[in-house]
Amino acid sequence: MEGLGWHIIAEVMGVEPKILNDSELLKNVLLDASTDANLTVLDIKVQRFSPQGVSILLVIAESHIAIHTWPEYGYAALDVFTCRDEESTWRAYNYIIKVLNPKNVQVMLVKRGLGVTTSVPNEEAISSSDILTEKTMASKEGLTIA
Amino acid sequence: MEGLGWHIIAEVMGVEPKILNDSELLKNVLLDASTDANLTVLDIKVQRFSPQGVSILLVIAESHIAIHTWPEYGYAALDVFTCRDEESTWRAYNYIIKVLNPKNVQVMLVKRGLGVTTSVPNEEAISSSDILTEKTMASKEGLTIA
Repeated sequence: MEGLGWHIIAEVMGVEPKILNDSELLKNVLLDASTDANLTVLDIKVQRFSPQGVSILLVIAESHIAIHTWPEYGYAALDVFTCRDEESTWRAYNYIIKVLNPKNVQVMLVKRGLGVTTSVPNEEAISSSDILTEKTMASKEGLTIA
Repeated sequence: MEGLGWHIIAEVMGVEPKILNDSELLKNVLLDASTDANLTVLDIKVQRFSPQGVSILLVIAESHIAIHTWPEYGYAALDVFTCRDEESTWRAYNYIIKVLNPKNVQVMLVKRGLGVTTSVPNEEAISSSDILTEKTMASKEGLTIA
């Protein structure tokens, strides 16, 4: 059945804590993985926590890559979600895992948007997909945006 | 078994296309859902595609919320991932779904980081988690960042 995206969800365990706490290294790993898999990077958000821990959200034209780390447990939650094809998704994922060098990984692939393409598309059906470059830093009353 | 996070993965179907193509509305929905669930918003990235389609990545202290839409199919891939607690995760999710008003949703909850807390924490074990505000807009040679 045809779907729209491939979403790898990985529990990455037994990773060296200093890797999981190195925001610069992790940022570069995600960027390099995207380049290697020929994905289109649009934006990246790197967040460090105290005393340890890193969250990185990489926005790609093909969806997103996210990693949240818990160095104290040697654990990272990794998501690689693309709508390019399955091969690219695994390629980006494998690149990241190779650098993280975990002792153990539990991984699953969720195909997103299964069956929805058989529904009747609306009048503006896509034939090609171009990217509008609009970035919005949200601010709303009562919310603090760091 | 104790885990670190709750990750809701939802296939949201039969949504009005104009909702799925309204980046402003979707941005506000995700922000309002976070406020309602008492999550800490750190950053938001809104990406519009041509001729249609929206991707929004909301970075929260507790992980992330992501939505990728295909208005032509009335479909959105929605992820709500928090490490606060299960209740907050569902609360944010339900808020979003209420606004999207889909005909059908296939949803699952994946508990992330199961069992890893039983491993011996390293010397810098977290007792509280503070947020360092460091935002990095990535740029690397050869990559175009929109």
